[in-house]
Amino acid sequence: MRLRGRRGTREELEQRTDLVVLDPKAYKGRWHERFGNNNPIHVELGMGKGQFITQLSAQNPDINYIGIDMFDQLLHRASDKAIKARIEHGRPELNNLAIVLFNIEYLEDVFADNELERVYLNFSDPWPKKRHHRRRLTHPNFLRKYMRMLNSNGDIHFKTDSEELFEFSLNSFSDVGLRMRNITLSLHREGNPSFNVMTEYEGKFVEQGKPIYRCEVVVGADALAKHVEALKTETSK
Amino acid sequence: MRLRGRRGTREELEQRTDLVVLDPKAYKGRWHERFGNNNPIHVELGMGKGQFITQLSAQNPDINYIGIDMFDQLLHRASDKAIKARIEHGRPELNNLAIVLFNIEYLEDVFADNELERVYLNFSDPWPKKRHHRRRLTHPNFLRKYMRMLNSNGDIHFKTDSEELFEFSLNSFSDVGLRMRNITLSLHREGNPSFNVMTEYEGKFVEQGKPIYRCEVVVGADALAKHVEALKTETSK
Ligand SMILES: C[S@@+](CC[C@H](N)C(=O)[O-])C[C@H]1O[C@@H](n2cnc3c(N)ncnc32)[C@H](O)[C@@H]1O
Ligand SMILES: C[S@@+](CC[C@H](N)C(=O)[O-])C[C@H]1O[C@@H](n2cnc3c(N)ncnc32)[C@H](O)[C@@H]1O
Repeated sequence: MRLRGRRGTREELEQRTDLVVLDPKAYKGRWHERFGNNNPIHVELGMGKGQFITQLSAQNPDINYIGIDMFDQLLHRASDKAIKARIEHGRPELNNLAIVLFNIEYLEDVFADNELERVYLNFSDPWPKKRHHRRRLTHPNFLRKYMRMLNSNGDIHFKTDSEELFEFSLNSFSDVGLRMRNITLSLHREGNPSFNVMTEYEGKFVEQGKPIYRCEVVVGADALAKHVEALKTETSK
Repeated sequence: MRLRGRRGTREELEQRTDLVVLDPKAYKGRWHERFGNNNPIHVELGMGKGQFITQLSAQNPDINYIGIDMFDQLLHRASDKAIKARIEHGRPELNNLAIVLFNIEYLEDVFADNELERVYLNFSDPWPKKRHHRRRLTHPNFLRKYMRMLNSNGDIHFKTDSEELFEFSLNSFSDVGLRMRNITLSLHREGNPSFNVMTEYEGKFVEQGKPIYRCEVVVGADALAKHVEALKTETSK
């Protein structure tokens, strides 16, 4: 049996041109063209092995998904899972997913203003040291980038096992003036809605009995108007 | 030794007219008159035995404090503590505290618009059952009352041991469009600032090793402007 080395991985990635994107800057402002339709684009920043985004993309053909990470091996795993998930869902023909190699720090080189409709942040690195807080993907500097890239229906979905990252993130969202909704300090508490698709990290933490924190953040003006309208209906019930 | 019965308690409360207010509706719109100055008024809703508000009032002579609860015995305990705290702080002459008997549900009968500068909610009853959520003191219906009573510098300081009440409250604050700051999921975590004055319930929970949740909510327009200004300075550092 031959083991696949790093070089082999990169070569295989280069061949999966329908799924894997190694030069994402080339698509800035042109992602809808690449997908061949005007469906909303949902991005997961730091997708890891890709369980979450590959499941979602197989479930929702009318949404375009982009999963970003910065390691070849992870992209390889994720693209394997994508193919498997399509077959499992009986839709091998699906073409609504891009697995992207990129460093999120330079995200503005990959997405134009208003190009996205949702940003998923799942179990982002917690960066516990104070001097590294600027690297947290929910730091206000990152949030301001997402706010530009998200369209008027845009929102952010965030979950984590890290108490300190969640605390920091709630403050960040508030600091940049964004409204939150469906905040939970225990996603897997009995009685909570079961829409949730688990990530690899989530599976491990849930097994260990750790609580998962989650919230949604309303970004776009139309999303905010809809949210406020829905709250009114709820209160008047 | 004679035990003090309920009747005795009420009679004693009636004699402490400098400290205890049994007919608070009479002061609606006139609390500043009662205190004899224009210092800001901070209210604790559900003060219990009064440790928190009596300590704060003895520490801060330039702020007027009002502690509200609905049981004679608690008011009696709280007024005892107030007298003790003043002596301990070497300020027996202080006159910046009112201990008020009232049911918070009818709060609008006691405070006029813009009469308050801060609302403290400490370990408010969690009301776990869904059909009782409207009684939670952070329910949007209550928040809208506080928003009217708070002046342009107004804010809300909230702490609790209840995960579910905290979660509910974060959503409520967001739902009525208020900004939060200094959110923490573990007030007594090492490294957190030590400004905190503990309540009776807090003391018990901390002893049991339970985490305490806390946040501040910016309400008044001037408070919001100052907050946003402070954030700018912080970011530019
Ligand atoms: C803790 S893992 C979580 C993975 C996955 N979302 C999950 O929940 O199972 C964080 C992921 O983010 C990726 N990541 C962190 N910083 C990144 C950056 N600046 N650019 C791209 N990916 C990044 C890491 O490579 C890693 O795969
Ligand atoms: C759980 S205790 C907390 C007491 C105190 N804040 C502490 O942290 O130690 C809640 C208090 O709120 C008071 N309370 C609850 N609902 C109230 C209402 N509608 N009006 C007045 N007081 C109320 C109760 O009597 C009780 O003393």
